[in-house]
Amino acid sequence: MNALGRHLLLELKDCDRDLLNDLDALRKLLRAAAVDCGAEILGDSFHRFSPQGVSGVVIIAESHLFIHTWPEHGYAAVDIFTCGTRVKPEVAAEILIKKLGSHNHVIIEMQRGIL
Amino acid sequence: MNALGRHLLLELKDCDRDLLNDLDALRKLLRAAAVDCGAEILGDSFHRFSPQGVSGVVIIAESHLFIHTWPEHGYAAVDIFTCGTRVKPEVAAEILIKKLGSHNHVIIEMQRGIL
Repeated sequence: MNALGRHLLLELKDCDRDLLNDLDALRKLLRAAAVDCGAEILGDSFHRFSPQGVSGVVIIAESHLFIHTWPEHGYAAVDIFTCGTRVKPEVAAEILIKKLGSHNHVIIEMQRGIL
Repeated sequence: MNALGRHLLLELKDCDRDLLNDLDALRKLLRAAAVDCGAEILGDSFHRFSPQGVSGVVIIAESHLFIHTWPEHGYAAVDIFTCGTRVKPEVAAEILIKKLGSHNHVIIEMQRGIL
């Protein structure tokens, strides 16, 4: 299939709950995952919610990485959307699953822009 | 199903190609769609690529709206991720499909965070 983009949707359960509430650590982690999978970072934006939870995006030249966390459930929704063949989203996925300490995860891959 | 979030993935083809390359118009459009579906905007970030294409996100208190455009193909990938029951992502989806002039579209809904 000839698709413009690959979009990995990660359902990450049983994660490190403290980490899911740590905005600075999550920003560093997403940025590191972006670099390690070969992406070029254009910017990021992270927000912490009260009483808990973080939303954050790293915009890359090849699309984006997104995380939304629910520390109270040990759950994070992560999206890794890349275009082109150079960047390997599965590399970022592996890093994030490991670093977030998820013991129960599912990865769904969507092909975006099948023309 | 009791899910933490609703995630609509929109495959929008045969769109208005000029609009897909107009960063300012796309920013206004995504922000308006966020407001009209009942979301609270926390921020946005948009980037234009050379020679064409735009990536942009509107971060909302209830998650995010994202767009990546390929004007040369008349194609846009749009994600609308919301949590809670107050915000109606399908309202934003309808607005974006209409305003982007898509004559060929698919909406996929994912339930995120089924605990």
